[in-house]
Amino acid sequence: MRVRFEPFGVITQVEAGKTLLAAAIAAGVEIEAVCGGRGTCAKCKVIASGELKPLTEEEQKKLTADELQNGYRLACQAVVAGDVEVVVPEESRVSRVSILSEGTVRPFVLHPWVKRHPLQVPEATLEDQTPDLTNVRRAWEAAHHKLTPTLRALRQLPFALRDQQGNLTLIAADDQVIDVHAGDAPPRVLGVAVDIGSTTVVGYLMDLETGQQLAVSSLLNPQTRYGDDVVSRIDFATNDPTGLETLQSELIKALNTIIAETTRMAGVSAQNIYGMCLVGNTTMYHLFLGISPSALARAPYVPAVVDAMRVAAHELGLAIHPDAHVWVLPNIAGWVGADTVGVILSTGMYLQDDVALAIDIGTNGEMALGSRQRLITCSTAAGPAFEGAQLSCGMRAAGGAIDTVKIDGDVHWHAIGDSAPRGICGSGLVDLIAEMLRAGVIDSTGMMQDSETLNQNGQHKLAERIVQEGRQRVFELVRPSEGAAGRTVRVTQRDVRELQLAKGAIRAGIEILMKKLGIGPSDVKYVYLAGAFGNYIKPESALAIGLIPDFPQAQIVPVGNAAGSGAKMALLSVGARNEATEILRNVEYLELSGRPDFQEQFAEAMLF
Amino acid sequence: MRVRFEPFGVITQVEAGKTLLAAAIAAGVEIEAVCGGRGTCAKCKVIASGELKPLTEEEQKKLTADELQNGYRLACQAVVAGDVEVVVPEESRVSRVSILSEGTVRPFVLHPWVKRHPLQVPEATLEDQTPDLTNVRRAWEAAHHKLTPTLRALRQLPFALRDQQGNLTLIAADDQVIDVHAGDAPPRVLGVAVDIGSTTVVGYLMDLETGQQLAVSSLLNPQTRYGDDVVSRIDFATNDPTGLETLQSELIKALNTIIAETTRMAGVSAQNIYGMCLVGNTTMYHLFLGISPSALARAPYVPAVVDAMRVAAHELGLAIHPDAHVWVLPNIAGWVGADTVGVILSTGMYLQDDVALAIDIGTNGEMALGSRQRLITCSTAAGPAFEGAQLSCGMRAAGGAIDTVKIDGDVHWHAIGDSAPRGICGSGLVDLIAEMLRAGVIDSTGMMQDSETLNQNGQHKLAERIVQEGRQRVFELVRPSEGAAGRTVRVTQRDVRELQLAKGAIRAGIEILMKKLGIGPSDVKYVYLAGAFGNYIKPESALAIGLIPDFPQAQIVPVGNAAGSGAKMALLSVGARNEATEILRNVEYLELSGRPDFQEQFAEAMLF
Repeated sequence: MRVRFEPFGVITQVEAGKTLLAAAIAAGVEIEAVCGGRGTCAKCKVIASGELKPLTEEEQKKLTADELQNGYRLACQAVVAGDVEVVVPEESRVSRVSILSEGTVRPFVLHPWVKRHPLQVPEATLEDQTPDLTNVRRAWEAAHHKLTPTLRALRQLPFALRDQQGNLTLIAADDQVIDVHAGDAPPRVLGVAVDIGSTTVVGYLMDLETGQQLAVSSLLNPQTRYGDDVVSRIDFATNDPTGLETLQSELIKALNTIIAETTRMAGVSAQNIYGMCLVGNTTMYHLFLGISPSALARAPYVPAVVDAMRVAAHELGLAIHPDAHVWVLPNIAGWVGADTVGVILSTGMYLQDDVALAIDIGTNGEMALGSRQRLITCSTAAGPAFEGAQLSCGMRAAGGAIDTVKIDGDVHWHAIGDSAPRGICGSGLVDLIAEMLRAGVIDSTGMMQDSETLNQNGQHKLAERIVQEGRQRVFELVRPSEGAAGRTVRVTQRDVRELQLAKGAIRAGIEILMKKLGIGPSDVKYVYLAGAFGNYIKPESALAIGLIPDFPQAQIVPVGNAAGSGAKMALLSVGARNEATEILRNVEYLELSGRPDFQEQFAEAMLF
Repeated sequence: MRVRFEPFGVITQVEAGKTLLAAAIAAGVEIEAVCGGRGTCAKCKVIASGELKPLTEEEQKKLTADELQNGYRLACQAVVAGDVEVVVPEESRVSRVSILSEGTVRPFVLHPWVKRHPLQVPEATLEDQTPDLTNVRRAWEAAHHKLTPTLRALRQLPFALRDQQGNLTLIAADDQVIDVHAGDAPPRVLGVAVDIGSTTVVGYLMDLETGQQLAVSSLLNPQTRYGDDVVSRIDFATNDPTGLETLQSELIKALNTIIAETTRMAGVSAQNIYGMCLVGNTTMYHLFLGISPSALARAPYVPAVVDAMRVAAHELGLAIHPDAHVWVLPNIAGWVGADTVGVILSTGMYLQDDVALAIDIGTNGEMALGSRQRLITCSTAAGPAFEGAQLSCGMRAAGGAIDTVKIDGDVHWHAIGDSAPRGICGSGLVDLIAEMLRAGVIDSTGMMQDSETLNQNGQHKLAERIVQEGRQRVFELVRPSEGAAGRTVRVTQRDVRELQLAKGAIRAGIEILMKKLGIGPSDVKYVYLAGAFGNYIKPESALAIGLIPDFPQAQIVPVGNAAGSGAKMALLSVGARNEATEILRNVEYLELSGRPDFQEQFAEAMLF
């Protein structure tokens, strides 16, 4: 059957019985599908005409009468029965997310584990028939230690050795020789550091000899097509016969795109990339290596492997030198991954005497509290509210997302890219709720006031924005006259409750960590806010809604993509790479699920 | 262009400009090509009709007027210009060589480096969320040492661990886990030992848990198509742009055929072959690994690598478990290879107090002399005479080859397979020359007597067999009335000279080794004759022609395929595998080329 996607003018052929979402994936048309195609997020609305199977129950629930009348369907539910024409409205398209690529890195010594070694090897004679490898090994071991060449490098050796009278250059990763060049004019020695986020993948192309960053590139993690959150991807990997393979190969493809892009920008060859260092959460680690993450999603939440692993690039199909060493940093536990190790590494909090708290907030809030004496980590299921999902008008931090709100008699907002607002992202929501609290639009239990009460308080402009819809109150942040294409951006009472759940989980985690470490808020000297959310959130708003406690002695430091910075450090410094494993040996992990004190703290922390 | 090969009825399409030999190789038709297609051996005679380029100079030199009249061409010289019909006469077909597969092995303890390890791993709980790998590692390290799984094994782990409540079986090669199975009903643990000869490849399928040999299979080394001897293959690998790749892939294909054949015979799966151990000469070692052997063929005769090497099966395309460990035993020098290490290993001569001499004769004569105190090896270029090549009626030890000769008034002979004689093989030639010497048909300088002299001595029947051809005498061993299809098998004065060169080289090598070691013939207690030639040769004939000195105290022991036995030992015993490297460290190598005393000895040793 033919399916045409407008306004892209893309036509694809699919078998009858496939959903429009499947057709879109096949055609390379990117449609939002936050819930992984289960019909629950209603982000994949499209206007479809032609032969389709009848509306499903989910569609009847999620689509309004207006939408039904205008031919709206959910792409993940609508099944193709013949030729179909589909219009993908703007709000359902995946928009390029603005990605936070840079992070703070503490000073460290450049000492990469991939190195160039120029050698001058004496020529063999009839009196000294020393074999090539033995000959090279002698010249090498005068200066270094053991030498083990890969088979590929060994195959290059006889040629390189004779090309320029024994003058040659070895490229070694740790003690393995992975490339051999004749002469002393060898190529650059490059590496790539990668942060595999659930949502975005960022790659940094580094010159390993100067430590210089040559280029950076990022992509939406293509796995989002198969589920926006980690759990729905584990489901897909577990239940679809080729799920694991698909998720891995999509990720490798994205990395190869980033590699092609960064090497193009820097004007270098990907064949000269000899080292790679990656961080990501534990699920991304498993999916990157093609190891089943199934056991992570059900109690007792056990990962297959947490250790730092080294594999060769060719084992994974990475388009760099085939024998390049690819390191994934170690994970701490099933829900505290190598990205947290990267944060601990780049902030250096495991080396400081002062107590620090690091928080990286996404669907899960991963946090670490402590100092060189003792460091404890935990993870809380914050839910997708901070990433803008599962909210009526939530969206990722992309163009058109409201990211700043000020209430001052009436509402003022700012949208990313200074464009017309399409929805609200995590940091905007925290701002909004903080302001609504301050203005008394919601009370400390999270309940939204009615217009009458607000009018009584003289807040007439705000009162106008309160709408009663059935049994629920709604706050209209952007009304049709103010919005993009006449759209409304609104926050419902339910949205407020979602945020309360999310912030309650994070806050409860922080409280339990402090309790476990036997300290109070005034003992904390640094609060590192990592990741995009942490970077863009206003600290005062985070305090206002009680996402973090008031730390009277603490300096609040947004550290940007600290996980990615950790990957760069481990790429550029053998010491830092080894420290990552050292961190794993010393850090404690606290499992919060099933702890009665967590439940108590959580209930309390949900209040404002 | 269409080329049809009869009597096989094989038709192939080739481009104009290709030789008939190239067409035959493409079509899988095996034609003798001892010189590697250089037009010098004239073994590839075929009768061709159709459109061919004119006769080359080489053809005009090598083909008789009779042959030219009958449409004979040299397949390596005749170039296709249109459709051609080719008849391959029997003498130009590659015949199956009778391969010596078994050898003597000294007793050793079964202690393979590939092993099965059953484990019972405790289940994870919320209180103990130990990652799978850590969990398995703990159970393992209670009994063994370090554990490093391959990526493939790691991918199997989460499934195997949960399939039968933590009851699983690991297959480890040394300290690397290469396979993981659920439960305690795992497959067999198998290995393959291989002797890669220049002429034949033999593979032994072994059960690593019982030490039992399950099957053996052998093939003509398919590289012989590109040159019968090692030097012509090095030439091909050096000068043809895809030569090295072709020689390697042909060898791998042959090994995969042997693997398929032996596993079929034994009714087992090749996926359960987890270890492989190979011996061969230094050139075969290089070609097997795809490492250029070019420097071996020109002074100072330097190999790229001599060390024992371990590679994974998938790196070479071997059709066994992809992560199986494939070991090639070490070489001693460019012209004394891992096959000699195998001989030293399986005879145990490096452990004995008594002095022993081991000789493995092929195109090169590799020999080792000594005891546990000191062991010296060398290699002499014997030339192809002992392998039946470069002689007017020489052939390999295949069906129809005369292998035993007795002179008793007249000549009596035996041909392999009790078939009609087609030529004479190495051991037959040694027999013949010994008998001719005894009967006075040739004198101690190697000169063949004329009929007159023989008649004067009353040896009339022998005198009848002497024919004068131009300036050369010829001895007719088989006359048309006695031979196959009326064929003559004859030995020319030049053939005798070839044999003198060959035996002189071997003998001179032995003499120099004794001199270097400071011993005389009576100090030698064992003479190990290895390989097919050594196994079939009559020791008294070898003594009669002076191939080996008279060792008054020595026991002469044919040890069969001792190189292959060494490969089996190294497969079945980690101790033996390590000893191979130990041998390399202790053995001395003597380069004979360029030694003035070798030239002297050689001149003297050529006499009978």
